[in-house]
Amino acid sequence: MDQSDLPHRNWQLSERARKLTSSAIREILKVTERPEVISFAGGLPAPSTFPAERIRAATDRVLREAPAAALQYSATEGYAPLREWIAARCSTAGATIRPSQVLITTGSQQALDLIGKALIDPASPVLVETPTYLGALQAFSLYEPRYVQVPTDDDGLIPEALTSELVKGARLLYAQPNFQNPTGRRLTLERRLALAQFAKTSAFPVVEDDPYGALDYAGKPLPTLLSMAPDHIAHCGTFSKILAPGLRLGYIVAPEELHYKLVQAKQATDLHTPSLTQRIVHEVIKDGFLDEQVPAIRALYASQCEAMLDALARHMPQGVSWNRPEGGMFLWVTLPAGMDTMQLLEAAIAHDVAFVPGAPFFANEAASNTLRLSFVTVPPARIDEGIARLAALTRERL
Amino acid sequence: MDQSDLPHRNWQLSERARKLTSSAIREILKVTERPEVISFAGGLPAPSTFPAERIRAATDRVLREAPAAALQYSATEGYAPLREWIAARCSTAGATIRPSQVLITTGSQQALDLIGKALIDPASPVLVETPTYLGALQAFSLYEPRYVQVPTDDDGLIPEALTSELVKGARLLYAQPNFQNPTGRRLTLERRLALAQFAKTSAFPVVEDDPYGALDYAGKPLPTLLSMAPDHIAHCGTFSKILAPGLRLGYIVAPEELHYKLVQAKQATDLHTPSLTQRIVHEVIKDGFLDEQVPAIRALYASQCEAMLDALARHMPQGVSWNRPEGGMFLWVTLPAGMDTMQLLEAAIAHDVAFVPGAPFFANEAASNTLRLSFVTVPPARIDEGIARLAALTRERL
Repeated sequence: MDQSDLPHRNWQLSERARKLTSSAIREILKVTERPEVISFAGGLPAPSTFPAERIRAATDRVLREAPAAALQYSATEGYAPLREWIAARCSTAGATIRPSQVLITTGSQQALDLIGKALIDPASPVLVETPTYLGALQAFSLYEPRYVQVPTDDDGLIPEALTSELVKGARLLYAQPNFQNPTGRRLTLERRLALAQFAKTSAFPVVEDDPYGALDYAGKPLPTLLSMAPDHIAHCGTFSKILAPGLRLGYIVAPEELHYKLVQAKQATDLHTPSLTQRIVHEVIKDGFLDEQVPAIRALYASQCEAMLDALARHMPQGVSWNRPEGGMFLWVTLPAGMDTMQLLEAAIAHDVAFVPGAPFFANEAASNTLRLSFVTVPPARIDEGIARLAALTRERL
Repeated sequence: MDQSDLPHRNWQLSERARKLTSSAIREILKVTERPEVISFAGGLPAPSTFPAERIRAATDRVLREAPAAALQYSATEGYAPLREWIAARCSTAGATIRPSQVLITTGSQQALDLIGKALIDPASPVLVETPTYLGALQAFSLYEPRYVQVPTDDDGLIPEALTSELVKGARLLYAQPNFQNPTGRRLTLERRLALAQFAKTSAFPVVEDDPYGALDYAGKPLPTLLSMAPDHIAHCGTFSKILAPGLRLGYIVAPEELHYKLVQAKQATDLHTPSLTQRIVHEVIKDGFLDEQVPAIRALYASQCEAMLDALARHMPQGVSWNRPEGGMFLWVTLPAGMDTMQLLEAAIAHDVAFVPGAPFFANEAASNTLRLSFVTVPPARIDEGIARLAALTRERL
């Protein structure tokens, strides 16, 4: 059945809904839920890092101390103490972030939806990295933009490529400067300075999506674009990678005028993020818990990353290249030109190993010889086994 | 400051965001958060009905028994046991609802947003009751429809008014058959049959929004449109009025083809509703708890409604009329022609009493002498005092 039709009825869908197509990859990857599959596909944080007992105790306190408020409707902007905590966390010596800039969202996917709602008209140019985060493409695409790919290299987005011709008429530039999904690349300090300067003079906001910033293995974070140009950035963050994604708690820090529009859009979209989950998260983090939690996640993911790098070096044939992430959850593999990772995926699934092909991460022209590997869900022993299988399949195809 | 501009920057907003205006009423009603104000404005369920202890115990169980699943990413469609529970709850002798028709949403406001996303293009005709639910107008308006008002009377929407001329080109008809917000009206059985028949032959879905159906004081619910035309209705429900709104948990039951599009739209919008809140709600309700909970809420709201009807009869001058709701949370007052309830609201606020003027509930031409009263948040003694003040102000203006 072609899912873009409603065969039994003549109901008419919106243009945007007609363009929504079933993701072939999503369908293929459904089989990776089988326990025997070694899956490097999902971006699922390691469940061993979820502070379940602490969340349980926090929920207990919240529901004993403020049951009516935790279970009642609440402000669209979000729970005030949590907004204050986020503003303080995002502030630096040079840039004070105000709680009035913070909007709590139902995960950072909603942040992207609201940004699309507020800024994108059909055919508006939207600038994205090459490749870029698939979830952002999905969110923005419902508002039917025209994507413009910004060139990148191993150091991330190339600011010099943002010529007046390329950026003409753009509504926003979307970037993940820290350990980008899918490539794991980090934007260099020099380029951050250049991009912040660009944001200060451009006719549109730079959206800094930062889900992985805290997962910097060496604990030496580079400054955010937000800290460099606080009045010109829409900065998205999330608790999904440092606490638990099932809570669906993210946020946008934006200049008040844009913030105000995002609040109006959110009110129409889901009124507010659950009062209960906002209070649980604030209760968990308010006394410094992340100072213990985040280093533990970093150490785990750094060791998993190392295990995958070792396995790749051990098993992959010549001609295959990959990067060495300094943080985050993903690395990016490039096979020899001419190879197609969609075809490789079908073979891989048959051998109980999975990854995400690179193509869907490209807004326009795709490099079909690329793929994304997540190293955070599978334990080291199985990482080696999975990479060995993948390497064998790659070698067969060379 | 005109909030539709971004004065310090020349960022361009989307057309839909430019049309979003700050609600004058919302601004006025912000003062009703002062404890001395007797507010009949908010649709806030009575916090005394929230089963906080049961929710606390359920959370405890969920986080002890399935911590990894409750805190991890989960399926966009929602938690399978909860979807099964909802399908069973919505099924009747004549109509079996399948779990595959159920999508869990982040409150029923999100259900409306997703329906707008899937069905409305700019300038598409959308049929709504006269008046209709303000939150639906807010959700749909982001997709820039052209509203067509369907005439109503004290028995709700008038099916005979749905002529082929009126409904031409419509993408959906939106209705609240049970104890409508804002009027408290219930659609009669005869009209339900006619509307279900209409749904079976129309070229667009009828959206049956049913947040208040369980709050039927006499416990004699009329059949839903869903039960009468299960393949032709998009039925929205919520746990906000029978458990707690701060959990933000709602759902849409729709034919699979539309369901599939709504799932795709939801994936792009917020990936999924929090895993934790879905499991909490299922844990709370799975053993029949609502069979005790709902009758208690009904009894409370019935007595509050009675208190307000008594107070209106005691205090209001001749020429003011109102309905007698058989369920739900609201009643609808009509002042003599020529009176303006927006002006009355300003005077009322000065006397520490609040309501919502009727005008914003009309999609197009409004009856500006109407107002909505909620009787569920304020206890009976204060209801009388509040209505007395409102009556005095009305009398002054006659």
